[in-house]
Amino acid sequence: MVGMNILVTLNSNYLWPLKVMLKSMFYNNPDERFVIYLIHSSINDAELDELDRFISLHGNGFESIRIGDDMFQDAPTLLHYTKEMYYRLLACRFLPQQLDRVLYLDPDILVLNPIRDFYHLDMDNYMFAASSHTFASVPELNKLRLAPYKIEDYYNSGVLLMNLALHRQVIREQDIFEFVSRYRMKLMLPDQDIMNALYAGYIRGLDEKIYNYDARRYAYYKLTSNGECDMDFIINRTLFLHFCGKKKPWNKGYSGKFHVLYKHYEKMTKESEARVLV
Amino acid sequence: MVGMNILVTLNSNYLWPLKVMLKSMFYNNPDERFVIYLIHSSINDAELDELDRFISLHGNGFESIRIGDDMFQDAPTLLHYTKEMYYRLLACRFLPQQLDRVLYLDPDILVLNPIRDFYHLDMDNYMFAASSHTFASVPELNKLRLAPYKIEDYYNSGVLLMNLALHRQVIREQDIFEFVSRYRMKLMLPDQDIMNALYAGYIRGLDEKIYNYDARRYAYYKLTSNGECDMDFIINRTLFLHFCGKKKPWNKGYSGKFHVLYKHYEKMTKESEARVLV
Repeated sequence: MVGMNILVTLNSNYLWPLKVMLKSMFYNNPDERFVIYLIHSSINDAELDELDRFISLHGNGFESIRIGDDMFQDAPTLLHYTKEMYYRLLACRFLPQQLDRVLYLDPDILVLNPIRDFYHLDMDNYMFAASSHTFASVPELNKLRLAPYKIEDYYNSGVLLMNLALHRQVIREQDIFEFVSRYRMKLMLPDQDIMNALYAGYIRGLDEKIYNYDARRYAYYKLTSNGECDMDFIINRTLFLHFCGKKKPWNKGYSGKFHVLYKHYEKMTKESEARVLV
Repeated sequence: MVGMNILVTLNSNYLWPLKVMLKSMFYNNPDERFVIYLIHSSINDAELDELDRFISLHGNGFESIRIGDDMFQDAPTLLHYTKEMYYRLLACRFLPQQLDRVLYLDPDILVLNPIRDFYHLDMDNYMFAASSHTFASVPELNKLRLAPYKIEDYYNSGVLLMNLALHRQVIREQDIFEFVSRYRMKLMLPDQDIMNALYAGYIRGLDEKIYNYDARRYAYYKLTSNGECDMDFIINRTLFLHFCGKKKPWNKGYSGKFHVLYKHYEKMTKESEARVLV
């Protein structure tokens, strides 16, 4: 059986939610093998070692890819954003050259169902498969903000299936740096904006209720699906439950429809962690 | 290791929530052995057989105790209630005589944590251990309703640890029947009323936030505990999460703080059921 390649890019602040995300994915995909690639620049060896043991305990593989200080020295930077914003879109440079596909996941996600079929989705000539999180008014704003780029749908970059073979042909570092320099003041979520502007025609759209469910929007999804997208739907069909926004379920003071489910997976994660630390 | 005895009394309509309750209990008590006693009068052999296989699959024991039509022929009955209302309080008559303790559980419960310590609680001279679900105004009403019985706390009978040895000494069928005849028109929840009126002095009170958490009252518990009883508390410390009231999480149209957790356990239950039916 061929395993699946998962990509994450983050710093130490997100190691705990990363473990919870991985725990949910392993639990709901018990017969699968994963290799987790972590592209980072600041996570220390003790933390990497512990993460490695956590992943090994579940029978899966781990590869740490550290980006040195000498990389991206000439890249434009932005207030509040570090050069790590480039790792996701330039992953094809850092991942092993034989990988032709990887699934990038944000750490503020729970994986609720088997992902094998999705992972092997036909990518045809698409660089990415992703979901848009679109309210009616947002597209108009994005058209203005990123003009003259044509943004028909604005895709969320938290769940990104990536066609790495095609990335290696199309993605040029210089295009990205130039884009960032030019739109510096207008960028809201840099990597997401870059993807949506530069590669708009190369994104295969996915149903957000299944592939990138915004945990804040239960009532909206239920209403707009005529009731079909209820709790049963989510538990049995949604692959990625995404805790978008500033309020995160691992922090105090969070509340929301899926709070208790997150706490449940956190507890499972702690139990596994205890076994790692023994 | 000595196993734990669990009692349930229900009809076919509650077989599905019963399985979900059992699944949550088995899952969160992985190293324990249980024997499930089901006292009933109408569940058919095919249903019993399937339940038996479900329980066996998890390494636990099952005993069906069918009450024949000839029993309770002289017992008073009530509108909307059948003679099954007597099974819980008279369980000591039907359970094996060597059992000195049993834990009764309603089927509209999720068991979230290990219950071994609770099960072995010192019962001293108490017949029951139970939690009250008391809003300020309810005790006054109950005092009026069930006078002259002194009801200081009105206990919920959904989670009842029973001292069977003492039950056999104290509980008289005739007392119960007389009580029901006399208070017939005033009884709201017959078995719960009987327990609270006849055995008021024999109930050991338990913290409802741990031992019988009313799933409708998240905000109330959190507020009255100065924030201590939050989602982390529930997931890590609450033993029995009780879906009290008419709206049940296995029915369409339910909504509530714990809806998604119930659906999660339902899914786990379905997966086990699929293995039973193979």
